[in-house]
Amino acid sequence: MNKKTTHTSALSEKDGIPSPEITSADAIAKIQQKRKKQPTVSALVKGILANDKTALSRAITLVESTNSKHTEKANTIINQCLPHANKSVRIGITGVPGVGKSTFIETFGSFLTTKGKKVAVLAVDPSSSLTKGSILGDKTRMEALVKDENAFIRPSPSGESLGGVARKTRESIILCEAAGFDTILIETVGVGQSETAVHSMVDFFLLLKLAGAGDQLQGIKRGIIEMADAIVINKADGDNLKAAKIARTEFKRALHLYPTKESGWQPEVTTCSAINNEGIPEIWEMISNYMEITSDNGHFQKKRKEQNKFWLLQTIDERLKADFYQDKKIKKELEAQLQLIEKDKTTPFAAAQYLLALKS
Amino acid sequence: MNKKTTHTSALSEKDGIPSPEITSADAIAKIQQKRKKQPTVSALVKGILANDKTALSRAITLVESTNSKHTEKANTIINQCLPHANKSVRIGITGVPGVGKSTFIETFGSFLTTKGKKVAVLAVDPSSSLTKGSILGDKTRMEALVKDENAFIRPSPSGESLGGVARKTRESIILCEAAGFDTILIETVGVGQSETAVHSMVDFFLLLKLAGAGDQLQGIKRGIIEMADAIVINKADGDNLKAAKIARTEFKRALHLYPTKESGWQPEVTTCSAINNEGIPEIWEMISNYMEITSDNGHFQKKRKEQNKFWLLQTIDERLKADFYQDKKIKKELEAQLQLIEKDKTTPFAAAQYLLALKS
Repeated sequence: MNKKTTHTSALSEKDGIPSPEITSADAIAKIQQKRKKQPTVSALVKGILANDKTALSRAITLVESTNSKHTEKANTIINQCLPHANKSVRIGITGVPGVGKSTFIETFGSFLTTKGKKVAVLAVDPSSSLTKGSILGDKTRMEALVKDENAFIRPSPSGESLGGVARKTRESIILCEAAGFDTILIETVGVGQSETAVHSMVDFFLLLKLAGAGDQLQGIKRGIIEMADAIVINKADGDNLKAAKIARTEFKRALHLYPTKESGWQPEVTTCSAINNEGIPEIWEMISNYMEITSDNGHFQKKRKEQNKFWLLQTIDERLKADFYQDKKIKKELEAQLQLIEKDKTTPFAAAQYLLALKS
Repeated sequence: MNKKTTHTSALSEKDGIPSPEITSADAIAKIQQKRKKQPTVSALVKGILANDKTALSRAITLVESTNSKHTEKANTIINQCLPHANKSVRIGITGVPGVGKSTFIETFGSFLTTKGKKVAVLAVDPSSSLTKGSILGDKTRMEALVKDENAFIRPSPSGESLGGVARKTRESIILCEAAGFDTILIETVGVGQSETAVHSMVDFFLLLKLAGAGDQLQGIKRGIIEMADAIVINKADGDNLKAAKIARTEFKRALHLYPTKESGWQPEVTTCSAINNEGIPEIWEMISNYMEITSDNGHFQKKRKEQNKFWLLQTIDERLKADFYQDKKIKKELEAQLQLIEKDKTTPFAAAQYLLALKS
């Protein structure tokens, strides 16, 4: 209305808001309390090594953070935890939504803790940044395990790329192991490239299936079956039992068509009913058997070292890209170059060169 | 022997070698001749646009070079050729060794030139740096096409990574198109990830198969069948004819299990005998039909733009990695870090951070 009376200089500022009164003893105490809640790196490491789940959680939060100061802290913690890590069995669990992954992990995890194991459950779900954590997000589906003092459950980190999400989970494994967890279950949803990422960080890869649904209907790609060390047909109960047994025979036959694995392990097919707690001890026995065979023939150690080399290169690639694409100038100019490509005004190579020159 | 008499200063130099005598008129003429052989960028562009195959060859050599000065020249040439490119149909051809790719390309290419087409044959074969060009290396297998003035044949560039090899071929397409070639055939061997790279640079993807061999025996992964716009069963002649017809029926049935492609094109299965020149016009008719449908529904243009965006990101990733890993210091230190991982003395993440810090 009265435009003329407002400041027209670009340097003008709005009137400041009066400072809130925080000089009360109460407010000061609250701030001090809050500062206390940000423990030092050494306090976190000490807590992790003392099996303090709160310290573990906080350290994982630093691992997952995109703040570079947090990343620095996280790296120090990981380095200090390293001598205490690597002493676990890492099991990947995949299967399409509806196959009963949460129930399986609840039952299998509880079985393991009653056997004296300490179980950490992590996840790689690149979609979780969109769906706000579909996997493990609904912890109420794992009621018993959540309350179990020998279990630790952590939803998937959110992140823009699968590479980033997977790397964070991979780093969290080290922290869980340093905190004394000797069995790490890593859940992923069976619909994309995330299985390959999980496969590259676990010792044993378990594929959950349902009976009575064709391979295509279940949406599992053939490559995932090739990766599996075991196929477990879940919900083998009631009216489903017969179909589950037929499916087991069919999968056994199908698996025999694949060449023998480098591990010397012949993938097994078994059935279970996670909801009725049936067939669970047999699965653990199978995994123990696998561990024995592959430890004896040296494959277990060899695979872990190969995975570590893979993750070295993977981490470098991921960070080189992150450094580049997170640059504000690059972000803006990339958008512009994509527009030029859309209008056929440049080649991909000229555009790439232009963008690379901006950064160097 | 007489160490005391030699210079001990770090600044000392060995005696110079006398300059060779090159003052003869003959030698000067030879040097001038040689200098003439290195044409300027604008001469090469002019040559390419005048459909000079020698200029085209030389420009592609610059594209394939790892010398950064050559890369600079190559990029200038590509940029200047760009307005004259994009006017072709790009056809990817894959199939395992022994399926008859060379004979097929010889027959199909010759058929196209008799129809007035100008045909360029390129290849993506990441193994060629080891085998010194297995694909198209033996040009004698394409005798007619090599002599055909309306054809241009270029073996696969050699390179350390598939990404690098593929990018170089992708850039060469532009030069071939600017030189007036309106049909680009890109050959790749059907045994790895190279099909995905070729699929991302062609309009039509053709998979060559043989009758009478099961899918597994032929070593073709399911993902490659999913990419195919057509499956052509080659060597459908003599005693093979019946088996080829059965195979055609089987593949047709199998293809119907896949969801319809975004292009609106239903992949076709056909037979041919490249060696007997049978079934070849039908294949061209099919591709022309594909071009008509996808040009009409806009998919052709849309796909090319998407491919260009893919290649922008691909090129950036490739060059970021090349910049990093080609650094001499990094090369040496990477080796050392891999050794430490082998001995369990570091984590992949600590090693990655150490290496990244060296470069920045």
